[in-house]
Amino acid sequence: MKRLFNPSSIAVVGVSANPAKVGSTIFLNLINNGYGGKVYAVNPHHKELFGKRAYAKVSSIEGAVDVVVIATPASTVPSIIRDAKKKTNNIIVISGGFGESGNKDLEKKLKRVAPKNMVGPNCLGIYSAKSKFDTLFFAEHKLPRPPYGDTAIISQSGGVGSTILGLAAKEGVGIHSFVSYGNGYVLDESDFLMEYARNKEVGKILLYIEGVKDGRKFSKALAYAQKRKPVIVLKAGKQGKAKQAATTHTGAIAGSYLTYKAVFKKARVVEAESFEKMFDYAKIFSQPRPNGNRLAIITNGGGLGVMAADEAVKLSLELPQFTPSTTRMLRKSLPSYVSVNNPLDVVADAAVERYKKSLQAVMEDRNIDMVLVNILLQPPGMDTSLVETIRGFVGKKPLAVVVPGGMLESTLRRMLTQSGIPTYPYPERGVDALYTLYSSSKTSPTL
Amino acid sequence: MKRLFNPSSIAVVGVSANPAKVGSTIFLNLINNGYGGKVYAVNPHHKELFGKRAYAKVSSIEGAVDVVVIATPASTVPSIIRDAKKKTNNIIVISGGFGESGNKDLEKKLKRVAPKNMVGPNCLGIYSAKSKFDTLFFAEHKLPRPPYGDTAIISQSGGVGSTILGLAAKEGVGIHSFVSYGNGYVLDESDFLMEYARNKEVGKILLYIEGVKDGRKFSKALAYAQKRKPVIVLKAGKQGKAKQAATTHTGAIAGSYLTYKAVFKKARVVEAESFEKMFDYAKIFSQPRPNGNRLAIITNGGGLGVMAADEAVKLSLELPQFTPSTTRMLRKSLPSYVSVNNPLDVVADAAVERYKKSLQAVMEDRNIDMVLVNILLQPPGMDTSLVETIRGFVGKKPLAVVVPGGMLESTLRRMLTQSGIPTYPYPERGVDALYTLYSSSKTSPTL
Repeated sequence: MKRLFNPSSIAVVGVSANPAKVGSTIFLNLINNGYGGKVYAVNPHHKELFGKRAYAKVSSIEGAVDVVVIATPASTVPSIIRDAKKKTNNIIVISGGFGESGNKDLEKKLKRVAPKNMVGPNCLGIYSAKSKFDTLFFAEHKLPRPPYGDTAIISQSGGVGSTILGLAAKEGVGIHSFVSYGNGYVLDESDFLMEYARNKEVGKILLYIEGVKDGRKFSKALAYAQKRKPVIVLKAGKQGKAKQAATTHTGAIAGSYLTYKAVFKKARVVEAESFEKMFDYAKIFSQPRPNGNRLAIITNGGGLGVMAADEAVKLSLELPQFTPSTTRMLRKSLPSYVSVNNPLDVVADAAVERYKKSLQAVMEDRNIDMVLVNILLQPPGMDTSLVETIRGFVGKKPLAVVVPGGMLESTLRRMLTQSGIPTYPYPERGVDALYTLYSSSKTSPTL
Repeated sequence: MKRLFNPSSIAVVGVSANPAKVGSTIFLNLINNGYGGKVYAVNPHHKELFGKRAYAKVSSIEGAVDVVVIATPASTVPSIIRDAKKKTNNIIVISGGFGESGNKDLEKKLKRVAPKNMVGPNCLGIYSAKSKFDTLFFAEHKLPRPPYGDTAIISQSGGVGSTILGLAAKEGVGIHSFVSYGNGYVLDESDFLMEYARNKEVGKILLYIEGVKDGRKFSKALAYAQKRKPVIVLKAGKQGKAKQAATTHTGAIAGSYLTYKAVFKKARVVEAESFEKMFDYAKIFSQPRPNGNRLAIITNGGGLGVMAADEAVKLSLELPQFTPSTTRMLRKSLPSYVSVNNPLDVVADAAVERYKKSLQAVMEDRNIDMVLVNILLQPPGMDTSLVETIRGFVGKKPLAVVVPGGMLESTLRRMLTQSGIPTYPYPERGVDALYTLYSSSKTSPTL
């Protein structure tokens, strides 16, 4: 499946003279956005498209073709595949209009000719951040692409998937690659789970599903993947009307949520209860695993410290006193009006240096397993040099940063996230992320 | 208390030659950011400051002084107040360093001389969006001020309060005014609750507290205010270590959370469990009250519809079928491949017009009490004309909009919010806000 994600040559079937059409958008994205391989346009009615030679069919392309992307009306897809298979088994069918629209005959026909590495139909296909192989039919100005990183995304839904990508781009979260597999007639969530589990460049996997067809295969793939790296699953379509809506959406049977929960629990994957939490958790898994549930909170805003402590207490995290030696060190390096407690309120007049000294002491404290840093950016001594300072402590113990507020704060959050520091807009979300890291480490002794 | 929030003349005590100092920042904000009244600088060691005449003491100012703002070392505050009282009883003490720092004698001294309208000490004071009366000691570039609106904010914590203001500015939420009262030796949360309850320009009140001193007064003020307009309370410092942290922070005794919960319940105010939710709820209370719990979901992304439905089911909201006449109308105006269900998935190729037709039908449906609109902005037919379209439906039935995603989506969210349409970044938060509006209406028959 390596070639499917990193092709050296791509044929796009369904490029037309209209740049706004799906096939054209994919073709133009590929030739304009830095993809380094060969890209061929296929359209029997044109000799040239966008200044490039157009081919009548895939098999008339002289050179090798690693991946074929099809964006033509559903009825034309089976015969295009029959021809394209002369070149490759890696075929992505973007087109919808099969079983999900009631065309069961066309679905059967497609399944009969489908090669072993077919993605789709009715999907967004693949986005690979490193090679810039990209079949998303949204222009860059509508969907800015995220930077390269180690998070892989598997999404049954195209809309949910592309929304996650947009969010990643905005927050500065690095994405390894993305696949939306739609109806999944051949390759499905389990195949991609296995692929990403084996790929050493992938550090964690996000999975959005509404329903899976082969429960046994899914259960095995989940367990296999989770043994190798964190898997965060969002299962939508849980009960009643939501389940029915899922069936209308992807044609999948949403199944009993209790069964899914049991499968998730057995595989020890992290279940995100919402879209928002899926992303929150993705960020925290860049951190080392905590040895226990003892949290330290450092803050320059008393109220933020109190709110973080509330959430910690609610989740049964401990907020221990620092060791006598840490306390001594903190008393020495902090002003006398700072009370050395946990939460440690370094007070609103703190400059970045005071955070550095506090982190130095707290990170070494043997009573502490993980650290939450709250930042109010408004006081005069606080600025973006915080990023460098905090980066110096990454990797020692799990660390999450909270920067609540407006525009300036969003910018700082983005800078921190891009530096590999999981950053959140509210204290509760930072604490919840650390808690999830802790509880998943507890239940996953293999990690 | 009217003058305190809308003074025609202000004296700032503690302006110095250094523009970065607290007193100078307040003075410069007042003279540069559009405040229309008179502003006097007070400092016995200067004849002139920032090109303006400086006065040795408040009482030497010739004209009337409606409000005195004091930002000098704690020890100097009582004598400044003694002099200032010759001019006014409206005095805001920004300075900290009293009881909260262990200076109990100074606290007693201050209380003895305090006038009846004293705010603080140890606070940010007041921000009034309309008059631009503003004692926040953060420059505009560090804390952009939010636009004018009908939400009033009362915050025990300065840091939490200013963070809420920054967030409001970013999201485009209109703020009537803001008060951070710090140690609250004279005026406290209950006084401001009463004041805002009576002020006709205030539509809703956000209250952040860690602990109150006079429980009986608080309980009465809460009930009084909630009978007149929605009050949303965030109580921090609930249990154990979080309670201790609150005591260190504002010197207040956090008290038993169960007692607070009982008080909130009796007054029928909405309790926000987190910072994030406080803001989510503030937005939804611009909407009319629903007559029941029957929700319609309109979406152009199937997955978003499923997630919203999941949350609705979790919160026991109903997702009824539309009436036969609505169903007929929708079948007539939507393409044949749109299945008319609730959630109503108008499909990814929908342009803005399809939302308009769907909203027209659903808003008239007598089976429906409230409406959630999910928007994927990436498809070609979707653009910012959505704002005008949706605005046409405001006021009929409660409405919340969800626009998840990246940069473009944030901009659309802001535009919608500024048009008075409560807008959220995730389906769950939109549904939760509508649920809160519903459940608070149910328990508040007077509203």
